[in-house]
Amino acid sequence: MSLNLKTNTEHFTNPLYLESGRILEPYDITYETYGEMNEEKSNIVVISHALTGSHHAAGTYEGESKAGWWDGLIGPNKAIDTNKYFVICSNVIGSCFGSTGPMSLQHPHHEPYRYKFPVVTIKDMVKAQRILFDRLDIHRVHAIVGGSMGGMQALQFAIHYPNFAKHIVALATTHATQPWAIAFNKVAQESILNDPDFKQGYYDPELIKEQGLSGMAVGRMAGHISFLSHESMSEKFGREYKRTDGLYELFGKFQVESYLEYNGNNFTKWFDPLAYLYITKAINIFDISRGFDSLQEALTKIKANLHLISFRNDLLFKNFEMKELAHELQNINNTNHSYTDIDSSYGHDAFLVELEKFDFMIKDILDGNTKL
Amino acid sequence: MSLNLKTNTEHFTNPLYLESGRILEPYDITYETYGEMNEEKSNIVVISHALTGSHHAAGTYEGESKAGWWDGLIGPNKAIDTNKYFVICSNVIGSCFGSTGPMSLQHPHHEPYRYKFPVVTIKDMVKAQRILFDRLDIHRVHAIVGGSMGGMQALQFAIHYPNFAKHIVALATTHATQPWAIAFNKVAQESILNDPDFKQGYYDPELIKEQGLSGMAVGRMAGHISFLSHESMSEKFGREYKRTDGLYELFGKFQVESYLEYNGNNFTKWFDPLAYLYITKAINIFDISRGFDSLQEALTKIKANLHLISFRNDLLFKNFEMKELAHELQNINNTNHSYTDIDSSYGHDAFLVELEKFDFMIKDILDGNTKL
Repeated sequence: MSLNLKTNTEHFTNPLYLESGRILEPYDITYETYGEMNEEKSNIVVISHALTGSHHAAGTYEGESKAGWWDGLIGPNKAIDTNKYFVICSNVIGSCFGSTGPMSLQHPHHEPYRYKFPVVTIKDMVKAQRILFDRLDIHRVHAIVGGSMGGMQALQFAIHYPNFAKHIVALATTHATQPWAIAFNKVAQESILNDPDFKQGYYDPELIKEQGLSGMAVGRMAGHISFLSHESMSEKFGREYKRTDGLYELFGKFQVESYLEYNGNNFTKWFDPLAYLYITKAINIFDISRGFDSLQEALTKIKANLHLISFRNDLLFKNFEMKELAHELQNINNTNHSYTDIDSSYGHDAFLVELEKFDFMIKDILDGNTKL
Repeated sequence: MSLNLKTNTEHFTNPLYLESGRILEPYDITYETYGEMNEEKSNIVVISHALTGSHHAAGTYEGESKAGWWDGLIGPNKAIDTNKYFVICSNVIGSCFGSTGPMSLQHPHHEPYRYKFPVVTIKDMVKAQRILFDRLDIHRVHAIVGGSMGGMQALQFAIHYPNFAKHIVALATTHATQPWAIAFNKVAQESILNDPDFKQGYYDPELIKEQGLSGMAVGRMAGHISFLSHESMSEKFGREYKRTDGLYELFGKFQVESYLEYNGNNFTKWFDPLAYLYITKAINIFDISRGFDSLQEALTKIKANLHLISFRNDLLFKNFEMKELAHELQNINNTNHSYTDIDSSYGHDAFLVELEKFDFMIKDILDGNTKL
């Protein structure tokens, strides 16, 4: 069977009440689906995306060469098998791929929000998705799967909509963002803010897509460091020089430098700088226990089967953050959870690139073959 | 007894032949001494500084409040006891505190070198120091002690001037800079280069000291991440917010963000951006085995007693880099070496701040009380 990829945007005119007390009104949510919903609506799998991800999780658009960000995991006969499951992934609010974000036009002024856009939280992102699902007449799903910020959303679903999903799978994430991750985001944010072409938020988005934004490129380089690990960098790049005669040239380049440059510069052509500021802010202030007396109390709300997967060399969200969470869960009666720490030298990016290390686990979880 | 702090600058008119094949001519080296040289000249301890360090390792200048960067270690009755030892620390060439660097005036043009300054290596820095010591009629020293880039210099001394020092102590360093460290330097370099006030190297140094250079500030923030660790950041900052009402403000700040801002912004007022580019370049291309067939072959040159000290949570130069070095040394006959891995959650900065964890070791090494 084919992937049956469909992309849609839903428009909402009722206000979205945000955690900050502010509202977003109106707003759009762009989403993508793969496979087909069965009659009982019992085969729905929600995918949550990370910082720079989008609703485009699988398949390849006509005329494009790059597949969706989790294409290795989602598709016919893949771990998240679209022959069996109806998969839905939506772009988070605050992002820049169709859902309402800081560069969306502010009603009724027809000018981009820019800094007038409200700070949104992971909880707000999840709330907006829940409203989208209501619109689609989806009131309960088989599973929610996400890594990094996608894992934060999955956890937030588990706590705030306890009856919504049967299985929650959170990979390479944390229950509360730690200063180490906040610090990397800080470098990226400051780098964007300092770029004169950013014009204090009043940049021309078309011009930036054409020319790039060097400040965001540098910020993204810092991000790429946090996604890798000391070991994976040494394995991948060693001390290889791009040109051997460049050793004594001030701007001679090591391979790792070329990698960072390429990825940093490329990034600015497809991601919006204000969206980067807003989404990293949402990540920074993520704390699953906010509004509760303790993490314990928050976790008692969970009714889904919760599956936590960490990666041993994840430097952004260290595996002990997930271990802590698993440990807390053990102290709560009536929670069904599993925790797996995957041996990987890759770093945080493992959840995007080392699929073979966990795809079978996701398949087992979805098929109900995982012991809890 | 007093510290007996003396600061001097020596001027050299003979060319310094650099590893690149280029020359530096003339050049200055600024250095500082503490304590008194004994008649036999048997009590000399050389201190090598790190990336942003200087010759000012100990004591406090009149009218200033901040002491030298290793003041806790060097002084009367301290681990490096200036009542016993004559301590000398010089500013490396390429730096910006008196020794010749990229903003020095290029003879005979009386204009700063800027990008015309040659790339210098750790080996060049050490060679220049060796020439300074010759001038001072110092031909053999009791010990050389350095951390981070200072440790690189210490190792370079051990290999290229095997008869010069009795003891070499290298802390928190590596035998060859790995891509992880290069990547952090890359973010800092690109951040400087992208700053329009840097004017492609043609900035006004006085103006930068006054106004700061935001690009270098951001780059330094990335540096500070690499000096700390996930654990030390969580301990130090937690998820404390600077103002509780700032949580939903886009520019509300976590404590860790204020820390990075403060240190980043402050840094640009006392360090030169071109010196930062040149010294990080020297660190990036550092490889103790360059010019030899192997690391093994390089290490066979060593005659000094070599003491390696790493810190368990050093993320910049991982302890296994030092372990590797210690392991290689074990395979060589006739080397006297010790290796200690210090338990610390602090990260790379431990060699500057957790002195109590290793000062007694340095004292024992200097006093000849360490088993090899």
